[in-house]
Amino acid sequence: MNITKQSIGKDLILLREKNPLVHNITNYVVMNFTANMLLASGASPVMAHAIEEVEDMVSISSALVINIGTLSPAWVESMMKAGKAAAKKEIPVILDPVGAGATPYRTSTAKRIIDECDITVIRGNASEILSLRDSSAGSKGVDSMHSIDTAEDAAVAMANELNIIVVVTGNIDLVTNGTDIVKIHNGHPLMGKVTGTGCSASALTASFAAINDDALAASVSALTCFGIAGELASEHSRGPGTFTTALIDALYNLSTDDINRLASITIQERKDI
Amino acid sequence: MNITKQSIGKDLILLREKNPLVHNITNYVVMNFTANMLLASGASPVMAHAIEEVEDMVSISSALVINIGTLSPAWVESMMKAGKAAAKKEIPVILDPVGAGATPYRTSTAKRIIDECDITVIRGNASEILSLRDSSAGSKGVDSMHSIDTAEDAAVAMANELNIIVVVTGNIDLVTNGTDIVKIHNGHPLMGKVTGTGCSASALTASFAAINDDALAASVSALTCFGIAGELASEHSRGPGTFTTALIDALYNLSTDDINRLASITIQERKDI
Amino acid sequence: MNITKQSIGKDLILLREKNPLVHNITNYVVMNFTANMLLASGASPVMAHAIEEVEDMVSISSALVINIGTLSPAWVESMMKAGKAAAKKEIPVILDPVGAGATPYRTSTAKRIIDECDITVIRGNASEILSLRDSSAGSKGVDSMHSIDTAEDAAVAMANELNIIVVVTGNIDLVTNGTDIVKIHNGHPLMGKVTGTGCSASALTASFAAINDDALAASVSALTCFGIAGELASEHSRGPGTFTTALIDALYNLSTDDINRLASITIQERKDI
Repeated sequence: MNITKQSIGKDLILLREKNPLVHNITNYVVMNFTANMLLASGASPVMAHAIEEVEDMVSISSALVINIGTLSPAWVESMMKAGKAAAKKEIPVILDPVGAGATPYRTSTAKRIIDECDITVIRGNASEILSLRDSSAGSKGVDSMHSIDTAEDAAVAMANELNIIVVVTGNIDLVTNGTDIVKIHNGHPLMGKVTGTGCSASALTASFAAINDDALAASVSALTCFGIAGELASEHSRGPGTFTTALIDALYNLSTDDINRLASITIQERKDI
Repeated sequence: MNITKQSIGKDLILLREKNPLVHNITNYVVMNFTANMLLASGASPVMAHAIEEVEDMVSISSALVINIGTLSPAWVESMMKAGKAAAKKEIPVILDPVGAGATPYRTSTAKRIIDECDITVIRGNASEILSLRDSSAGSKGVDSMHSIDTAEDAAVAMANELNIIVVVTGNIDLVTNGTDIVKIHNGHPLMGKVTGTGCSASALTASFAAINDDALAASVSALTCFGIAGELASEHSRGPGTFTTALIDALYNLSTDDINRLASITIQERKDI
Repeated sequence: MNITKQSIGKDLILLREKNPLVHNITNYVVMNFTANMLLASGASPVMAHAIEEVEDMVSISSALVINIGTLSPAWVESMMKAGKAAAKKEIPVILDPVGAGATPYRTSTAKRIIDECDITVIRGNASEILSLRDSSAGSKGVDSMHSIDTAEDAAVAMANELNIIVVVTGNIDLVTNGTDIVKIHNGHPLMGKVTGTGCSASALTASFAAINDDALAASVSALTCFGIAGELASEHSRGPGTFTTALIDALYNLSTDDINRLASITIQERKDI
């Protein structure tokens, strides 16, 4: 594993150079914020959900985000079609199972997407990740009731079984491929007071995965940049409103110097004996 | 009636302690802003509209918001199903009849929801409330063409007939159970220049009603906190853009001291002889 | 042609006086921002897409915006119905062909709307306008791959053939009726880093067209006010987040003095011999 502060900075520079098109099938609540965060990261966002065009949109995109935050049957069919097209084209697919555990419909839909599409990264909060392994786990709507630690075993097991990257975000963010566990200590408590920060983390993971084939490293780069932007944003905030606009600014202005100065990452190899 | 500055402050503290889950079936325009305002108030928002899951989401929620701002038949069916499930569970249901009076479809849908669901609070602007009593009242899209005073009689009559709380918001906000009339003089003119402030008032009413069984008192607490937040936000604003972010900040930072210092409420008993 | 700095200022004053209702059938991503920009301009926005009510909403509106940014079949049918009703009522219809060229579904839908409705103004970026003439032009999702210059011939030809106003926005904005070409040099690079600025330009064109029957002049007024607001907003920005809120503020606070001081417009008559 070659994750360093320098590699994260290189990813950010490459993202801005390549300006990849990221196709989002996401929820109504966060579409605007997600699009602005993707633009601020250096990516070019597009939102398209009609079954008539999702395959065509995937065909010109460099990554796909599937987010079930305000799901309904017609949208789920488009997610499936887009997910399959993305797998065929071999571009990364990031699944955000928003609210998995809150209702059976969300849990079963998230599982169906995992089963039928070739997902590259799943990013959720602890409750969402746990609910995908244990349907009795529950979730407080779209907010987590569980700590990151509680979800670590589930994340590692899921990564191994599905051969994907699993990301659990919260006070500390955890990224695992089933063997390596990377913890990102960056971020700010106000991120939990803004709707769509989790969804933004997923979208940013897609934008970094669009320019770095190593999905583990791309996920770490995304979450580190996002967390540092949150820390820098807090310096220009009086509450969650000004924090939101400052977060977009901070991501847009993020420098490799900021990353070198502020990145706080722990890498460990997990050996289960 | 035990509405005092102290009781409003207690409601706010309780809301932050209990962090109730508020289920919103609302319009596309305001979803993001509403979610952020609910978070800032201390509640936990969830948006879910699929008929496949609305009953399950209601089953874990403490209040339901039905907002017809961008209605369509499939959404209306989900609203009905969620409304009935909420009545069965005996959690408060807040109806926001956005644009009632502007088109027959909006007026008749609002009336149908009132007829078939067990609504706790209706919150609208003067035109919307009037149009529910007199279908010739009309509405300028989603903006009011009438003053609060004009709607007072209709609000009192509706509250009596339906045995609910009716809230009319505008320059002055009016809350009535059909007997008592509470007027809240807090607020700021810029609130009329931001889309979704009315919808936020409805959502905040839901979050206070989730922690206070007295829906009249809960509505007054919500509108007073909202109005004071607007006044405080104006101090950090150069126009409706910065006002919007400042409003979220102000609600998040609102203290019982602010309420004691700024709340401006008139309570009267109405006796029609 | 009577376009002057003074005529633009008069349009702005008239818009604020008349406060026209602008009906938007637009995409999920930009609904909130568009509504806030319309309010800031002096118009009264309404979003309504249900086929059950679009004709009724058009009947009380002064302009219609059709924006295909997150299109699907049911929405397209409502767009058609609303567009026809608007033509019958003789109110201006502004088409924003978001992402035309990116997928066949978008390109063909935009063309179908142009064929079947009586469009007053089409506003797009260079790639979108080119793709409506040459389906091989392509588009990077919703972002342009072409310069304004490249699209000038297509814009002029389209304006002539369809007898409409064509607006191409980018670093420089171009407005043409097929004979006259007006170029607006106002604006700021951060406008390209905020999602929905193009959509806002279309919506603002509708609000000015609602109060000025000369659609060429109305388009120029809209884009000039928008561009100047962008320049003024940049003075209060640290990045695209604060720029967005500052843009709403700047439009709300825009004065005729600002227009007189900052408007930068070139008018030319095109003679193809």
